[in-house]
Amino acid sequence: MPLQVAVCGPRMCSEEEWQDACTTGRLLAERGAVVICGGQGGVMAAVAGGARSAGGIVVGVLPAADRSSADPALTVAIPTGLGEARNNVIVNAADAVIVIGGSWGTLSELALAMRSGRVPVVQLGGWHVLDEQGRPLSGICHASTPRQALELTGLWS
Amino acid sequence: MPLQVAVCGPRMCSEEEWQDACTTGRLLAERGAVVICGGQGGVMAAVAGGARSAGGIVVGVLPAADRSSADPALTVAIPTGLGEARNNVIVNAADAVIVIGGSWGTLSELALAMRSGRVPVVQLGGWHVLDEQGRPLSGICHASTPRQALELTGLWS
Amino acid sequence: MPLQVAVCGPRMCSEEEWQDACTTGRLLAERGAVVICGGQGGVMAAVAGGARSAGGIVVGVLPAADRSSADPALTVAIPTGLGEARNNVIVNAADAVIVIGGSWGTLSELALAMRSGRVPVVQLGGWHVLDEQGRPLSGICHASTPRQALELTGLWS
Amino acid sequence: MPLQVAVCGPRMCSEEEWQDACTTGRLLAERGAVVICGGQGGVMAAVAGGARSAGGIVVGVLPAADRSSADPALTVAIPTGLGEARNNVIVNAADAVIVIGGSWGTLSELALAMRSGRVPVVQLGGWHVLDEQGRPLSGICHASTPRQALELTGLWS
Repeated sequence: MPLQVAVCGPRMCSEEEWQDACTTGRLLAERGAVVICGGQGGVMAAVAGGARSAGGIVVGVLPAADRSSADPALTVAIPTGLGEARNNVIVNAADAVIVIGGSWGTLSELALAMRSGRVPVVQLGGWHVLDEQGRPLSGICHASTPRQALELTGLWS
Repeated sequence: MPLQVAVCGPRMCSEEEWQDACTTGRLLAERGAVVICGGQGGVMAAVAGGARSAGGIVVGVLPAADRSSADPALTVAIPTGLGEARNNVIVNAADAVIVIGGSWGTLSELALAMRSGRVPVVQLGGWHVLDEQGRPLSGICHASTPRQALELTGLWS
Repeated sequence: MPLQVAVCGPRMCSEEEWQDACTTGRLLAERGAVVICGGQGGVMAAVAGGARSAGGIVVGVLPAADRSSADPALTVAIPTGLGEARNNVIVNAADAVIVIGGSWGTLSELALAMRSGRVPVVQLGGWHVLDEQGRPLSGICHASTPRQALELTGLWS
Repeated sequence: MPLQVAVCGPRMCSEEEWQDACTTGRLLAERGAVVICGGQGGVMAAVAGGARSAGGIVVGVLPAADRSSADPALTVAIPTGLGEARNNVIVNAADAVIVIGGSWGTLSELALAMRSGRVPVVQLGGWHVLDEQGRPLSGICHASTPRQALELTGLWS
């Protein structure tokens, strides 16, 4: 079975985040990885479009119980009917999680991925999490380009 | 986006159910439908194998939180970590539900599909549900062959 | 921690089912059991009302993401936002499952409880499940009164 | 139906966090609120113990599918079988969310609560979330004592 990489990010994203997500999707597809995403707009739509442009498979795991909010670029839509509890399904489905940009939903996915302790988590831009003393928390890899994000997952090293 | 059809059935199945599931998977793939299944053995493995033999895409929605129990024929595995609550995710992801054979897990999927009232439900063999007075319940279509099962979904009429 | 007993049944129920649910709730509360139910109308409201009339605690596990559909007799409402996937939460929370009356949602709860194989399942009226050959399936206890339903759980023997 | 307040925090907590959680539970129970928590150790056990000491009702929403990991101070345990997806159930069940201390699981609950935009979120100590430019995010109230945490929910103003 091919590698599966989750790419998480906000529905409302900047032009730069859109470009990064699009490039990340394309690079993942070129390496044969299935892309898992939240299946809606913004970063989710961009990563789906990028992956499809390179012939990749993209699965959108949706909060709703039907497909009406699914981005048209998805190969498969999984409307879970779970609401935001679907964020943990995205994390469970991934061999690595790449986070692009910031939002509360995105942060919950980052936190659930770190909570699982099971997969590499790479952040490309986005929000910062500090501990009680204001120090950055260990365990998250920070990339400055999509290519570096893939490298930091360690899946192709 | 292509049609998505869920095929549900037990891990422990008869030779006939295995053959029916295999044929159903193949026919669905030939018509371009994505197959959604529970991702494990028995009917789930048979439908996955059948669909893949015809070049189709098969998504397994697993109860576990990782992919260790995933059938190798799947295109994509979605380990949900939800246990049997994942049965409702399978139903939500489907444009039609085809049930092959009987088990308590399978019956829960049949019941959840009927509960949703959203999609056609077709049964190929398997258990029987009767109301308080011992009468068959309306709303489920009964097929005697895989080909008829696809026809009864109404998706290609 | 006290025993927890799930009582499952349809929103649309007969007068007799309502009475049975009300009595079952009262008997469970009198024996000190916490009642778990789906938190909405019909059998769910009746069992909640019965239990509260005897000073019991009733937890409603709701499909919605907020409490607007919660029955006012509940002690606690847990709006899960999971849709019908919440049916498996009800089953997991129970030391025994008592099913009163029939509906597709109710049948899914019965099937999930039998699937788990973890708890006694007692049916008071309701639908019938037969295997491929038309024979009743083993493992479900059938009661004809609420009092007998409690006895058949084996929790107080 | 009484108010329901979720108190979230790590299993591994400091002595100060334990005391704050215990006091928060007691104060909530004294005001008649039902306490919702994750049902396990650390802050979850402390808030449960505090609430029970004042005669309150405490519901633990557990990740596991059975009650073996439930803290003995709970009034009711809801073993969801959903893994960390249960964090969103805790948030949905709350009229306000109070977060004490920091961990990845705790942060996911904070983020899901903010994502919902439905309830006041109050933080007592714990981790810090900053945006792309390193500025604190708006919308979370910060308390320095349990009493102030209750006040900042606005539920009793």
